[in-house]
Amino acid sequence: MATLVLVRHGESEWNVKGLFTGWVDAPLSAKGESEARRAGELLIEAGIRPDVVHTSLLNRAIRTANLALETADLQWLPVKRSWRLNERHYGALQGKDKAQTRAEFGDEQFMLWRRSFDVPPPPIADGDEYSQVGDARYASLPSELMPRTECLKDVIDRALPYWYDQIVTDMVAGRVVMVAAHGNSLRALVKHLDGISDEAIAGLNIPTGIPLVYELDADYRPVTPGGRYLDPDAAKAAIEAVANQGR
Amino acid sequence: MATLVLVRHGESEWNVKGLFTGWVDAPLSAKGESEARRAGELLIEAGIRPDVVHTSLLNRAIRTANLALETADLQWLPVKRSWRLNERHYGALQGKDKAQTRAEFGDEQFMLWRRSFDVPPPPIADGDEYSQVGDARYASLPSELMPRTECLKDVIDRALPYWYDQIVTDMVAGRVVMVAAHGNSLRALVKHLDGISDEAIAGLNIPTGIPLVYELDADYRPVTPGGRYLDPDAAKAAIEAVANQGR
Repeated sequence: MATLVLVRHGESEWNVKGLFTGWVDAPLSAKGESEARRAGELLIEAGIRPDVVHTSLLNRAIRTANLALETADLQWLPVKRSWRLNERHYGALQGKDKAQTRAEFGDEQFMLWRRSFDVPPPPIADGDEYSQVGDARYASLPSELMPRTECLKDVIDRALPYWYDQIVTDMVAGRVVMVAAHGNSLRALVKHLDGISDEAIAGLNIPTGIPLVYELDADYRPVTPGGRYLDPDAAKAAIEAVANQGR
Repeated sequence: MATLVLVRHGESEWNVKGLFTGWVDAPLSAKGESEARRAGELLIEAGIRPDVVHTSLLNRAIRTANLALETADLQWLPVKRSWRLNERHYGALQGKDKAQTRAEFGDEQFMLWRRSFDVPPPPIADGDEYSQVGDARYASLPSELMPRTECLKDVIDRALPYWYDQIVTDMVAGRVVMVAAHGNSLRALVKHLDGISDEAIAGLNIPTGIPLVYELDADYRPVTPGGRYLDPDAAKAAIEAVANQGR
């Protein structure tokens, strides 16, 4: 039996501003930092001690992991980072105001961009101020791997190789794994784990800062579908809040 | 030509209290956190961008790296951690007051324990409150590898395998390497790099929080012996302050 802990980063400054973020490196807000520390407290209270941590290459996930681990006196844990755990690339919408985009393009198009399984937003131009082409942290990505936009299906396609090669490999070695990542990269993992259909995944929201714990069987499938949140009441309230974003 | 950046962690709360620390996991003081951020600013000003970071398993070095990298907007860098970069294990002196130890055992014995190349302090008992035996972060160390006390020679013996296997390997791959570690683990590396004698190393102090940069040749030996501090005036002042510790 393996244990997997998923943590979605706390609120970022761009969440507060209501902007599409994607791969833009927005920092955590003060509230987001508190959420991250709370995640560390929840780990302590639950008696769960990860052996290794995986993060995306984005500051808000890295700092969430750092603050949670500092709180749990575990900042010495080995850590691995990958662009494959990054948030969904939001294409040309990156840097745009969510409410304004909704007003401009209408509810249907807005929800399609936000929740469609396989329709990505228009691609971002390489010279756009919110493009990540040329960012040193992606220097090892050949141009054809560097996303210019992504739908959830694209995120699954690039996240699953990391799931199998790195995360499962750590669990095979007997390690409790913590993943600090993003709404959509974690939805990608959860869709895979719980076998959620392409249609049903649109309705799944993962709250920020509340560790979601899966016990996995010998095939690395959940013993209990959906896992368990370490603070179920807070998770329920937060899931409802996420669903109302952009309204 | 390879570039190596060494950073000794900023002031810890136990530095302030004047206690022997060694492997005890004392946190940074507020001043130590400022020093770490300053290290990040110095990297920016010098235009030096590490590609990978190596830290010990002790919080004060990890947090120094985190704060410096946050300041330099580089917290996404890959990071590797090892007990081989830990501070010298101070044996039975861990947790003891430096001034009191000096008064109790006399100047000669005190300086021998602090600065002898090959005479370690008495070993710490496994049940001692300041022993690290049983600490989860060292769970992968077989008992015979777990130090109970160390002299500088012991630190060199356990640090050099990491130097060759991990740090040099990263430089061979073309990476600029940053090492965030401790007074004695960094003295061990500097002794090796600059070919300092067993006698002369006693007089070498490395200041906290000021990046020490080495350009290395094809044999991974310094182009300029001693390297260069990114803030030479501050380094000079700090070196004198370290030399006066326990006086």
